[in-house]
Amino acid sequence: MPRQSPALTKALNGSCAIARCLGVLDDPWSFLLIREALLGRRTFAEFRDSLGIASDVLSARLAKLVEADVMTRASYQEPGQRTREAYDLTPSGRELSAVLIAMKQWGETHVPREAPAKVDARSQGSECQVSSQLIDARGRPVDADKVSFVRR
Amino acid sequence: MPRQSPALTKALNGSCAIARCLGVLDDPWSFLLIREALLGRRTFAEFRDSLGIASDVLSARLAKLVEADVMTRASYQEPGQRTREAYDLTPSGRELSAVLIAMKQWGETHVPREAPAKVDARSQGSECQVSSQLIDARGRPVDADKVSFVRR
Repeated sequence: MPRQSPALTKALNGSCAIARCLGVLDDPWSFLLIREALLGRRTFAEFRDSLGIASDVLSARLAKLVEADVMTRASYQEPGQRTREAYDLTPSGRELSAVLIAMKQWGETHVPREAPAKVDARSQGSECQVSSQLIDARGRPVDADKVSFVRR
Repeated sequence: MPRQSPALTKALNGSCAIARCLGVLDDPWSFLLIREALLGRRTFAEFRDSLGIASDVLSARLAKLVEADVMTRASYQEPGQRTREAYDLTPSGRELSAVLIAMKQWGETHVPREAPAKVDARSQGSECQVSSQLIDARGRPVDADKVSFVRR
Protein backbone atom coordinates (compact mmCIF):
# COMPACT_ATOMS: atom_id res chain seq x y z
CA MET A 1 0.00 0.00 0.00
CA PRO A 2 1.43 3.44 -0.90
CA ARG A 3 2.57 5.55 2.02
CA GLN A 4 0.67 8.77 2.49
CA SER A 5 2.94 11.81 2.22
CA PRO A 6 2.92 14.30 5.13
CA ALA A 7 1.56 16.96 2.73
CA LEU A 8 -1.39 14.74 1.81
CA THR A 9 -2.06 13.82 5.43
CA LYS A 10 -2.22 17.53 6.22
CA ALA A 11 -4.52 18.28 3.26
CA LEU A 12 -6.89 15.50 4.35
CA ASN A 13 -6.98 16.63 7.98
CA GLY A 14 -8.43 20.07 7.31
CA SER A 15 -12.01 20.96 8.06
CA CYS A 16 -13.28 20.36 4.50
CA ALA A 17 -15.84 17.55 4.42
CA ILE A 18 -14.68 16.40 0.96
CA ALA A 19 -11.20 15.88 2.42
CA ARG A 20 -12.70 14.00 5.39
CA CYS A 21 -14.42 11.59 3.00
CA LEU A 22 -11.10 11.20 1.13
CA GLY A 23 -9.43 10.42 4.45
CA VAL A 24 -11.59 7.29 4.56
CA LEU A 25 -11.53 6.48 0.82
CA ASP A 26 -7.91 7.33 0.21
CA ASP A 27 -7.09 5.08 -2.70
CA PRO A 28 -9.01 3.48 -5.60
CA TRP A 29 -9.12 0.07 -3.87
CA SER A 30 -11.26 1.51 -1.08
CA PHE A 31 -13.88 2.72 -3.55
CA LEU A 32 -13.81 -0.64 -5.35
CA LEU A 33 -14.24 -2.50 -2.04
CA ILE A 34 -17.36 -0.42 -1.27
CA ARG A 35 -18.64 -1.26 -4.77
CA GLU A 36 -18.07 -4.97 -4.20
CA ALA A 37 -19.74 -4.83 -0.77
CA LEU A 38 -22.77 -3.07 -2.31
CA LEU A 39 -22.84 -5.95 -4.84
CA GLY A 40 -23.18 -8.33 -1.90
CA ARG A 41 -19.65 -9.62 -1.42
CA ARG A 42 -18.75 -10.29 2.20
CA THR A 43 -15.77 -12.58 2.66
CA PHE A 44 -12.07 -11.95 2.30
CA ALA A 45 -11.89 -14.54 -0.50
CA GLU A 46 -14.82 -12.97 -2.36
CA PHE A 47 -13.21 -9.52 -2.27
CA ARG A 48 -9.80 -10.90 -3.25
CA ASP A 49 -11.07 -12.99 -6.13
CA SER A 50 -13.44 -10.40 -7.58
CA LEU A 51 -10.86 -7.59 -7.52
CA GLY A 52 -7.60 -9.50 -8.02
CA ILE A 53 -6.17 -7.50 -5.11
CA ALA A 54 -3.12 -8.76 -3.20
CA SER A 55 -4.01 -10.26 0.20
CA ASP A 56 -1.79 -7.90 2.22
CA VAL A 57 -3.27 -4.83 0.51
CA LEU A 58 -6.79 -6.20 0.98
CA SER A 59 -6.18 -6.84 4.71
CA ALA A 60 -4.93 -3.31 5.23
CA ARG A 61 -7.79 -1.71 3.27
CA LEU A 62 -10.47 -3.75 5.08
CA ALA A 63 -8.91 -2.91 8.47
CA LYS A 64 -9.00 0.79 7.60
CA LEU A 65 -12.65 0.62 6.49
CA VAL A 66 -13.56 -1.18 9.73
CA GLU A 67 -11.67 1.42 11.76
CA ALA A 68 -13.58 4.19 9.94
CA ASP A 69 -16.90 2.49 10.84
CA VAL A 70 -17.71 1.97 7.18
CA MET A 71 -17.61 -1.82 7.57
CA THR A 72 -18.00 -4.18 10.48
CA ARG A 73 -16.25 -7.50 10.83
CA ALA A 74 -18.19 -10.58 11.88
CA SER A 75 -17.16 -14.19 12.31
CA TYR A 76 -19.03 -16.94 10.55
CA GLN A 77 -18.58 -20.67 10.29
CA GLU A 78 -19.82 -23.06 7.64
CA PRO A 79 -20.36 -26.71 8.67
CA GLY A 80 -17.06 -28.54 8.82
CA GLN A 81 -15.06 -25.39 8.07
CA ARG A 82 -12.96 -23.21 10.29
CA THR A 83 -14.24 -19.86 11.49
CA ARG A 84 -13.86 -17.10 8.89
CA GLU A 85 -14.31 -13.35 8.86
CA ALA A 86 -17.01 -11.54 6.92
CA TYR A 87 -17.26 -7.82 6.31
CA ASP A 88 -20.58 -5.99 6.16
CA LEU A 89 -21.26 -2.36 5.32
CA THR A 90 -22.53 -0.27 8.19
CA PRO A 91 -25.37 2.20 7.43
CA SER A 92 -22.68 4.87 7.02
CA GLY A 93 -20.78 2.64 4.60
CA ARG A 94 -23.93 1.89 2.64
CA GLU A 95 -24.52 5.65 2.25
CA LEU A 96 -21.32 5.81 0.20
CA SER A 97 -23.56 4.44 -2.58
CA ALA A 98 -24.40 8.11 -3.26
CA VAL A 99 -20.74 8.83 -4.04
CA LEU A 100 -20.30 5.74 -6.20
CA ILE A 101 -23.49 6.38 -8.17
CA ALA A 102 -22.29 9.92 -8.97
CA MET A 103 -18.94 8.46 -10.11
CA LYS A 104 -20.70 5.83 -12.21
CA GLN A 105 -22.80 8.46 -14.00
CA TRP A 106 -19.73 10.57 -14.67
CA GLY A 107 -17.79 7.57 -16.01
CA GLU A 108 -20.69 6.50 -18.25
CA THR A 109 -20.94 9.97 -19.75
CA HIS A 110 -17.32 11.01 -19.99
CA VAL A 111 -15.25 7.82 -20.32
CA PRO A 112 -17.55 5.81 -22.58
CA ARG A 113 -16.69 2.26 -23.56
CA GLU A 114 -18.25 -0.05 -26.06
CA ALA A 115 -19.04 -2.62 -23.39
CA PRO A 116 -22.25 -1.77 -21.53
CA ALA A 117 -22.14 -0.65 -17.91
CA LYS A 118 -21.76 -3.61 -15.62
CA VAL A 119 -23.20 -2.30 -12.36
CA ASP A 120 -26.67 -0.93 -11.68
CA ALA A 121 -27.90 0.76 -8.51
CA ARG A 122 -31.26 -0.40 -7.19
CA SER A 123 -33.47 0.73 -4.36
CA GLN A 124 -33.91 -2.10 -1.85
CA GLY A 125 -37.45 -3.38 -1.80
CA SER A 126 -38.75 -1.57 -4.85
CA GLU A 127 -35.88 -2.73 -7.14
CA CYS A 128 -36.22 0.62 -8.93
CA GLN A 129 -33.12 1.92 -10.67
CA VAL A 130 -31.49 4.71 -8.67
CA SER A 131 -29.65 7.73 -10.02
CA SER A 132 -27.95 10.78 -8.56
CA GLN A 133 -29.26 14.28 -9.20
CA LEU A 134 -28.04 17.70 -8.12
CA ILE A 135 -30.82 19.94 -6.83
CA ASP A 136 -31.06 23.50 -5.55
CA ALA A 137 -32.64 24.59 -2.26
CA ARG A 138 -36.12 24.38 -3.80
CA GLY A 139 -35.56 20.87 -5.13
CA ARG A 140 -35.13 21.96 -8.75
CA PRO A 141 -32.57 20.02 -10.82
CA VAL A 142 -29.20 21.73 -11.35
CA ASP A 143 -26.75 20.82 -14.13
CA ALA A 144 -23.46 19.59 -12.68
CA ASP A 145 -21.46 21.72 -15.13
CA LYS A 146 -23.19 24.86 -13.77
CA VAL A 147 -21.87 24.51 -10.23
CA SER A 148 -19.10 26.43 -8.48
CA PHE A 149 -17.71 26.06 -5.00
CA VAL A 150 -17.34 28.94 -2.56
CA ARG A 151 -15.24 28.98 0.58
CA ARG A 152 -17.08 30.26 3.61
CA MET B 1 3.57 9.80 -6.82
CA PRO B 2 2.78 6.20 -5.85
CA ARG B 3 3.11 3.69 -8.65
CA GLN B 4 -0.07 1.94 -9.66
CA SER B 5 0.17 -1.81 -9.13
CA PRO B 6 -0.61 -4.05 -12.13
CA ALA B 7 -3.58 -5.46 -10.17
CA LEU B 8 -5.04 -1.98 -9.70
CA THR B 9 -4.44 -1.03 -13.33
CA LYS B 10 -6.37 -4.15 -14.33
CA ALA B 11 -9.21 -3.42 -11.88
CA LEU B 12 -9.54 0.13 -13.25
CA ASN B 13 -9.51 -0.98 -16.90
CA GLY B 14 -12.66 -3.10 -16.69
CA SER B 15 -15.97 -2.03 -18.11
CA CYS B 16 -17.36 -0.66 -14.82
CA ALA B 17 -18.02 3.07 -15.07
CA ILE B 18 -17.10 3.63 -11.39
CA ALA B 19 -13.66 2.18 -12.16
CA ARG B 20 -13.37 4.39 -15.24
CA CYS B 21 -13.98 7.46 -13.09
CA LEU B 22 -11.37 6.16 -10.63
CA GLY B 23 -8.97 5.78 -13.54
CA VAL B 24 -9.09 9.57 -13.87
CA LEU B 25 -9.32 10.41 -10.15
CA ASP B 26 -6.85 7.83 -8.94
CA ASP B 27 -5.53 9.46 -5.80
CA PRO B 28 -6.81 11.97 -3.24
CA TRP B 29 -4.81 14.83 -4.78
CA SER B 30 -6.83 14.59 -7.98
CA PHE B 31 -10.09 15.06 -6.10
CA LEU B 32 -8.60 17.98 -4.14
CA LEU B 33 -7.38 19.61 -7.38
CA ILE B 34 -10.91 19.45 -8.80
CA ARG B 35 -12.19 21.01 -5.57
CA GLU B 36 -9.65 23.84 -5.83
CA ALA B 37 -10.49 24.40 -9.51
CA LEU B 38 -14.21 24.58 -8.64
CA LEU B 39 -13.23 27.19 -6.03
CA GLY B 40 -11.71 29.25 -8.86
CA ARG B 41 -7.99 28.47 -8.59
CA ARG B 42 -6.24 28.40 -11.97
CA THR B 43 -2.48 28.74 -11.73
CA PHE B 44 0.19 26.28 -10.74
CA ALA B 45 1.19 28.53 -7.83
CA GLU B 46 -2.41 28.82 -6.60
CA PHE B 47 -2.86 25.04 -6.59
CA ARG B 48 0.52 24.48 -4.94
CA ASP B 49 0.02 27.08 -2.22
CA SER B 50 -3.57 26.20 -1.36
CA LEU B 51 -2.89 22.46 -1.10
CA GLY B 52 0.72 22.39 0.09
CA ILE B 53 1.40 19.79 -2.62
CA ALA B 54 4.95 19.14 -3.86
CA SER B 55 5.62 20.71 -7.28
CA ASP B 56 6.58 17.45 -8.98
CA VAL B 57 3.43 15.71 -7.74
CA LEU B 58 1.31 18.70 -8.78
CA SER B 59 2.85 18.73 -12.29
CA ALA B 60 2.12 15.04 -12.74
CA ARG B 61 -1.46 15.30 -11.43
CA LEU B 62 -2.28 18.33 -13.61
CA ALA B 63 -0.80 16.62 -16.68
CA LYS B 64 -2.96 13.57 -16.04
CA LEU B 65 -6.12 15.69 -15.62
CA VAL B 66 -5.34 17.53 -18.87
CA GLU B 67 -4.76 14.21 -20.64
CA ALA B 68 -8.14 12.97 -19.36
CA ASP B 69 -9.82 16.11 -20.77
CA VAL B 70 -10.90 17.17 -17.29
CA MET B 71 -8.77 20.31 -17.45
CA THR B 72 -7.33 22.37 -20.27
CA ARG B 73 -4.06 24.27 -20.13
CA ALA B 74 -3.90 27.87 -21.33
CA SER B 75 -1.08 30.35 -21.36
CA TYR B 76 -1.51 33.78 -19.83
CA GLN B 77 0.77 36.73 -19.28
CA GLU B 78 0.49 39.55 -16.81
CA PRO B 79 2.13 42.90 -17.72
CA GLY B 80 5.88 42.72 -17.16
CA GLN B 81 5.75 39.04 -16.23
CA ARG B 82 6.77 35.95 -18.15
CA THR B 83 4.16 33.71 -19.74
CA ARG B 84 2.58 31.29 -17.27
CA GLU B 85 0.24 28.33 -17.51
CA ALA B 86 -3.31 28.30 -16.19
CA TYR B 87 -5.57 25.28 -15.84
CA ASP B 88 -9.31 25.48 -16.40
CA LEU B 89 -11.93 22.80 -15.89
CA THR B 90 -13.56 21.52 -19.05
CA PRO B 91 -17.35 20.96 -18.96
CA SER B 92 -16.58 17.30 -18.20
CA GLY B 93 -14.28 18.33 -15.35
CA ARG B 94 -16.88 20.71 -13.99
CA GLU B 95 -19.41 17.86 -13.90
CA LEU B 96 -17.21 16.14 -11.31
CA SER B 97 -18.85 18.62 -8.92
CA ALA B 98 -21.60 15.99 -8.60
CA VAL B 99 -19.09 13.49 -7.20
CA LEU B 100 -17.50 16.01 -4.83
CA ILE B 101 -20.85 17.23 -3.52
CA ALA B 102 -21.87 13.65 -2.70
CA MET B 103 -18.52 13.19 -0.89
CA LYS B 104 -18.98 16.46 1.00
CA GLN B 105 -22.43 15.43 2.22
CA TRP B 106 -21.11 12.06 3.34
CA GLY B 107 -18.17 13.67 5.17
CA GLU B 108 -20.42 16.20 6.89
CA THR B 109 -22.73 13.47 8.13
CA HIS B 110 -20.30 10.69 8.99
CA VAL B 111 -16.98 12.34 9.86
CA PRO B 112 -18.25 15.38 11.77
CA ARG B 113 -15.85 18.03 13.04
CA GLU B 114 -16.41 20.95 15.33
CA ALA B 115 -15.21 23.39 12.71
CA PRO B 116 -17.97 24.28 10.26
CA ALA B 117 -17.82 23.06 6.67
CA LYS B 118 -15.52 25.24 4.62
CA VAL B 119 -16.83 24.70 1.11
CA ASP B 120 -20.31 25.30 -0.27
CA ALA B 121 -21.63 24.36 -3.69
CA ARG B 122 -23.58 27.03 -5.56
CA SER B 123 -25.48 27.09 -8.79
CA GLN B 124 -23.88 29.58 -11.20
CA GLY B 125 -26.14 32.52 -11.84
CA SER B 126 -28.74 31.84 -9.15
CA GLU B 127 -26.19 31.44 -6.32
CA CYS B 128 -28.56 28.86 -4.81
CA GLN B 129 -26.99 26.21 -2.60
CA VAL B 130 -26.72 22.87 -4.42
CA SER B 131 -27.02 19.41 -2.91
CA SER B 132 -26.94 15.86 -4.20
CA GLN B 133 -29.97 13.60 -4.01
CA LEU B 134 -30.56 10.00 -5.02
CA ILE B 135 -33.80 9.49 -6.91
CA ASP B 136 -35.63 6.54 -8.40
CA ALA B 137 -36.89 6.24 -11.98
CA ARG B 138 -39.97 8.33 -11.10
CA GLY B 139 -37.90 11.10 -9.51
CA ARG B 140 -38.79 10.13 -5.93
CA PRO B 141 -36.03 10.55 -3.32
CA VAL B 142 -34.21 7.36 -2.27
CA ASP B 143 -32.22 7.00 0.96
CA ALA B 144 -28.57 6.24 0.20
CA ASP B 145 -28.49 3.53 2.87
CA LYS B 146 -31.32 1.67 1.06
CA VAL B 147 -29.39 1.09 -2.16
CA SER B 148 -27.77 -2.07 -3.46
CA PHE B 149 -25.78 -2.68 -6.60
CA VAL B 150 -26.53 -5.44 -9.08
CA ARG B 151 -24.24 -6.74 -11.79
CA ARG B 152 -25.85 -7.02 -15.19
